Amino acid sequence: MNLQVTQENLHKALTVVSRVADSRGSLPVLANILLRTDGSRLQITATNLEIAITKRIGSKVVTPGEITVPARLMNDFVASLPGGTITLKLDQHKLKVSSGNYQSTINGLSTEEFPEIPQINDADNLTMKTQDLKKALSQTVFAASNDDSRPVLTGVLFAPIDGALTVVATDSYRLAEKSLGTTKLKESLLLPASAAQEMLRILPDAPEETTLLTNETQVYMKAGDTELTSRLIDGAFPQYRQLLPETADISFTISRDEFINITKVASLFARESAGSITLEVDEADQSISINSVASQVGENNSKAHAKVEGGGKVTLNSRFLLEGLGAFSCEEVTFSFSGTLSPCVITGDKADSDYRHVVMPLKA
Amino acid sequence: MNLQVTQENLHKALTVVSRVADSRGSLPVLANILLRTDGSRLQITATNLEIAITKRIGSKVVTPGEITVPARLMNDFVASLPGGTITLKLDQHKLKVSSGNYQSTINGLSTEEFPEIPQINDADNLTMKTQDLKKALSQTVFAASNDDSRPVLTGVLFAPIDGALTVVATDSYRLAEKSLGTTKLKESLLLPASAAQEMLRILPDAPEETTLLTNETQVYMKAGDTELTSRLIDGAFPQYRQLLPETADISFTISRDEFINITKVASLFARESAGSITLEVDEADQSISINSVASQVGENNSKAHAKVEGGGKVTLNSRFLLEGLGAFSCEEVTFSFSGTLSPCVITGDKADSDYRHVVMPLKA
Repeated sequence: MNLQVTQENLHKALTVVSRVADSRGSLPVLANILLRTDGSRLQITATNLEIAITKRIGSKVVTPGEITVPARLMNDFVASLPGGTITLKLDQHKLKVSSGNYQSTINGLSTEEFPEIPQINDADNLTMKTQDLKKALSQTVFAASNDDSRPVLTGVLFAPIDGALTVVATDSYRLAEKSLGTTKLKESLLLPASAAQEMLRILPDAPEETTLLTNETQVYMKAGDTELTSRLIDGAFPQYRQLLPETADISFTISRDEFINITKVASLFARESAGSITLEVDEADQSISINSVASQVGENNSKAHAKVEGGGKVTLNSRFLLEGLGAFSCEEVTFSFSGTLSPCVITGDKADSDYRHVVMPLKA
Repeated sequence: MNLQVTQENLHKALTVVSRVADSRGSLPVLANILLRTDGSRLQITATNLEIAITKRIGSKVVTPGEITVPARLMNDFVASLPGGTITLKLDQHKLKVSSGNYQSTINGLSTEEFPEIPQINDADNLTMKTQDLKKALSQTVFAASNDDSRPVLTGVLFAPIDGALTVVATDSYRLAEKSLGTTKLKESLLLPASAAQEMLRILPDAPEETTLLTNETQVYMKAGDTELTSRLIDGAFPQYRQLLPETADISFTISRDEFINITKVASLFARESAGSITLEVDEADQSISINSVASQVGENNSKAHAKVEGGGKVTLNSRFLLEGLGAFSCEEVTFSFSGTLSPCVITGDKADSDYRHVVMPLKA
């Protein structure tokens, strides 16, 4: 292998790809990135066996070839080099990287040890506006679970529900659901939250459409010159719809900013109690108040005006409430519940009318 | 106590003062700040027994009084409140803090448990331009040691050397020395590096002078409405001058930016070897090169043009070299040494002609 690339292109590609490389795993080659000439381009790939990302950049290829090198070192090194031409030259398993007065030798590992990136054949496809996909992922992925003991909850579900494409994630304490309009999708896909997060980083801010190619076990996405392949999670997502209340006895509509502010202040006094705050709705006063008590340090009560119907109390985790409110972008939200034990449903208006967020109550 | 202050003033004061409060210590009251009315002002004080900071802000005092409350909670809470008037009202040991629709009760501790802040009587004084003091502290404090086993090295020394005020810090691996012109100072002061860092945060970017009042054990500084009191370190600072070389066999003058760049790149390959890099000076080529070797991952050689006299090699810690170079602000620096075992001296021109930085070599 002997080729030239620009520092700018190589730096950009390494930044995107090397995030996936896995330096903590048991397989040393997974901490490496694969560099491989592909016609007149240089292909750069990393994988952690769950997700693989490949990026191709323009290159002046003198001799084709391939090698794997440590992702972190290569990324840090190229990031430190001045702009301009970088020459990559392979000598046995040593990659010589030179740029002006900088010359390095990076010890590589044979590409034979690098895992094959799966190809998706006989694929179904799911096409969406790129901006819809980005917004749906960003409004749901944070609600997925980090706990590997229930793998189905660590994913983001794409499901056809009543003919509409529905994107959902839940960790069983809160649930985020986005509707994306009619779909031809027949089978649900359960995308790992980590892959959803990488998609969010890769997808451009552009008006095009993005297509997900899927088979039973894998999903593949291409955005510009970047490709992502991920395994899908196997298992049945909870039938969550039947757990959601259809009506509510109590509801209020409030400025989202003000709701966030009073919740934040209350959460400061909720550190001892694992974030527990109590929301009280007062119809006569057309206001809500949030109370939090820390036996050691003190207590807080914050109040805000709201359009209220009904009255009652519910105890919630302040972090879940704040994260839920943060997923909306509209000015006003409506919060509905039916007492201390029923799920609390937050809905928005205008741009967020296709999104709802559910937070389960805590026992007071 | 019953008084009103603005959120803006209280927030600013708490940010400066609460940093000193010590929540990890064994004395719970040190995690608190002292609030005390002082005529028509509110005095806010925190101490960790080594350093104390006090700030006074304008206040509408209805009833005088005093209390201590948890620094972190008070700071976070006031930071979250909207701008405008805040009322502080003491009821037994409970401080009621209210602002518009926000009402909190913060449990306080009696001020009797709060340590007395020492007063400095019979003080000597040391007056400098504020900007000179700031620059001297910022160019030296990072070279002080973190290792409490040799307390004298954890301080920044202010000493009269040959009639000039000299500010010095060293951890025995590197040394930073700034000269501030003639002084009437008779006795050296050894200021804890932590106090020097707080001074840097407190001192304004203004053209006035700052006076340090000192006695044998304490130093006191006032900047605007902020006061800092710190203990001094007791002990004899090393007689470092006699360890510094007066002449050098080898020296080069180089663009500081370029020297930093090639050192940074080399340091990436020096992670395995605890930052060890080898600098080689070539008089015939009028260049220097930096070499670093990581047996596992590879090696690097970076080169730069320089005005060179003499030739030779020295092995250094890349972090110490980078931090030293970062303390200068001039465009070119001169690096002088006499072989693999002698101290390396970095000097600057123009604005930095009163500063020098010494890095001890590593055994290659």
